[in-house]
Amino acid sequence: MKKIILIPDSFKGTMSSMEICAIMREQVQKHYPEADIVAIPVADGGEGSVDCFLQATGGHRVPAKAKNPLFEDMQGFYGLLADGRTAIVEMAACAGLVLIQERKDPLRATTYGVGELMLDAARRGVAKIIVGLGGSATNDGGCGAACAAGIRFYDGGGRRFVPTGGTLQNIARIDASGRDGALDGIEIMAMCDIDNPMCGPAGASHIFGPQKGATPELAELLDRGVRHLGETIKRDLGLDLADVPGTGAAGAMGAGMLAFFGAKLQMGIETVLDTVRFDEKLRGADMVLTGEGKIDGQSLRGKVVVGVARRARAAGVPVVAVVGDIGEDVEPAYAEGVSSIVSINRVAVDFARARLRSKDDLALTVDNLMRFCKRMGL
Amino acid sequence: MKKIILIPDSFKGTMSSMEICAIMREQVQKHYPEADIVAIPVADGGEGSVDCFLQATGGHRVPAKAKNPLFEDMQGFYGLLADGRTAIVEMAACAGLVLIQERKDPLRATTYGVGELMLDAARRGVAKIIVGLGGSATNDGGCGAACAAGIRFYDGGGRRFVPTGGTLQNIARIDASGRDGALDGIEIMAMCDIDNPMCGPAGASHIFGPQKGATPELAELLDRGVRHLGETIKRDLGLDLADVPGTGAAGAMGAGMLAFFGAKLQMGIETVLDTVRFDEKLRGADMVLTGEGKIDGQSLRGKVVVGVARRARAAGVPVVAVVGDIGEDVEPAYAEGVSSIVSINRVAVDFARARLRSKDDLALTVDNLMRFCKRMGL
Repeated sequence: MKKIILIPDSFKGTMSSMEICAIMREQVQKHYPEADIVAIPVADGGEGSVDCFLQATGGHRVPAKAKNPLFEDMQGFYGLLADGRTAIVEMAACAGLVLIQERKDPLRATTYGVGELMLDAARRGVAKIIVGLGGSATNDGGCGAACAAGIRFYDGGGRRFVPTGGTLQNIARIDASGRDGALDGIEIMAMCDIDNPMCGPAGASHIFGPQKGATPELAELLDRGVRHLGETIKRDLGLDLADVPGTGAAGAMGAGMLAFFGAKLQMGIETVLDTVRFDEKLRGADMVLTGEGKIDGQSLRGKVVVGVARRARAAGVPVVAVVGDIGEDVEPAYAEGVSSIVSINRVAVDFARARLRSKDDLALTVDNLMRFCKRMGL
Repeated sequence: MKKIILIPDSFKGTMSSMEICAIMREQVQKHYPEADIVAIPVADGGEGSVDCFLQATGGHRVPAKAKNPLFEDMQGFYGLLADGRTAIVEMAACAGLVLIQERKDPLRATTYGVGELMLDAARRGVAKIIVGLGGSATNDGGCGAACAAGIRFYDGGGRRFVPTGGTLQNIARIDASGRDGALDGIEIMAMCDIDNPMCGPAGASHIFGPQKGATPELAELLDRGVRHLGETIKRDLGLDLADVPGTGAAGAMGAGMLAFFGAKLQMGIETVLDTVRFDEKLRGADMVLTGEGKIDGQSLRGKVVVGVARRARAAGVPVVAVVGDIGEDVEPAYAEGVSSIVSINRVAVDFARARLRSKDDLALTVDNLMRFCKRMGL
């Protein structure tokens, strides 16, 4: 084998995609020292997404001042890819739960900084901004980011304000006319792997509110606010987002991205594959190694493995999925282009013990796969 | 791939070698319907060994009257291979613990029936008898079998008797002159995978006595008997077996096989490989699938996987070891000829749960291996 592509998802709670790439690379290189090994750590939209893109495509981090989730000044950053035309903003960089772990406050948390980062990138002249939705501390429907971009929200008394989760229901009017012209003509993509609607029982507030600190009562209040925001967007901006899947992502940031930034919501893996020009990278590849924490026939949608496999199938490149657990009914994965599935489990122990040894087990699994390939003359 | 050899050890306590062969065959056939699939279930010397040989080489079971472990008449059997010149006797068929599970009695249990089966085969004109040592209920040092073959044991009063575990110390004299002439010139092999000496702390009585019903006191008594037998063999037959590894197998049947039958003790896997003419079967093979319950670098001796790998390496055929658990330090296995090791564990669960799903997990593992081979054009 002369060219091998590594493009694994993270194993949630165990190994990041970047760690997996490093382990895979080491093992492949051991047996194929001459091979061209292309490692593409897969950004999931959350924390670390910028670095994944930068590692896969080249480019650098751009530091930028921005508000943190509690409106405090902080040093944020975004990624500028090597082509100089694409920026990657990870929400978590300035609206992330990790930034205010001990001060969770979904009523007050804002996405203002996300808008600032986007604007900074826009003013740098990029043609495309990718926003990773994930890891957010917010439930503001993207209103903070919208304000940073010049969109105006007014309350019943005609006073301009920056809505947050707790004050969404005070929005009486939205005026998008002041949106910063720097954003005009820029293609904006929001990476989003979930289907949740913006409000209701399966909406942002009820499903993701609790992890951001919302009690059931607070979640109900937040949900009413998001619902009101949706109605106001429909009335003032002419967009009916009520039933759009994914608008519930990241505290209804999905809805805000559509309404205030004209963004397209896209499965994260598709965004990654497009951005790294995966189809070009597939040319001449002998094998693709992908993977995820658990493969399962019931939920293939939006999964990295299947996204990768579809493109590899089209390009005629074999795909091995190296996974944690192999669930039931994985047959559909083969139809999508997965050539073979290999579990890293090598001893019969439960997950609490397995996760502690996952790095070693992954290494041994890839080692043995490569030994086999080598021995079979591949 | 045009020819694939299946030669797995059993996964102890989970799947027999024959079951594993069947599962492997089904999965290989699914992807390579035209391939020549050679299945060699591996006899381990214990119960089922005859059927393993018969399945691997052809031949049939020969029924024969014999004494059970408690000197009761029973219908025993042995195997006659297709060449008509090799008989397989499994000790467990008439001296097995399973035959008297509720009536364990290591003081009284005899190997007499084993001798009867051997003699029956000898009279049929075979050139070779393979005796599987394993699963025995006895601790008689093979004296019962010797008696059935015409060897005479006398007590201090000059009375001829059939020694058993509890009466070994009464042996005053052994007279091998009456050994049945039908056994003359027949090559006798004893399959034996253990190293234990006939007596002492690591000997037959102390190590294997308890599972046959011996209390610590009884084990001590049995051990003294075996020690006395060894001394008497040395004096009367001129053979010093005290330190010979494997003489402690199957209630010191290993010692009796050497002393009374001129047998050679051999690792089970080597006996199997020789008997099935493994080297010939390797010709033209594209791959060997072997396996065992756990592969472990520390204890490769006598293991099926390594025995198979060594011969396959010499023949230049790749070997994949499909195993339950992959232990630590397996590097030496690669040096012995194992091309790649694959664990059947596919979900992180402990062994109590893993064993219940082992057949499905094995099937899925082989399925994926074959999918990979097929996809890679092998």
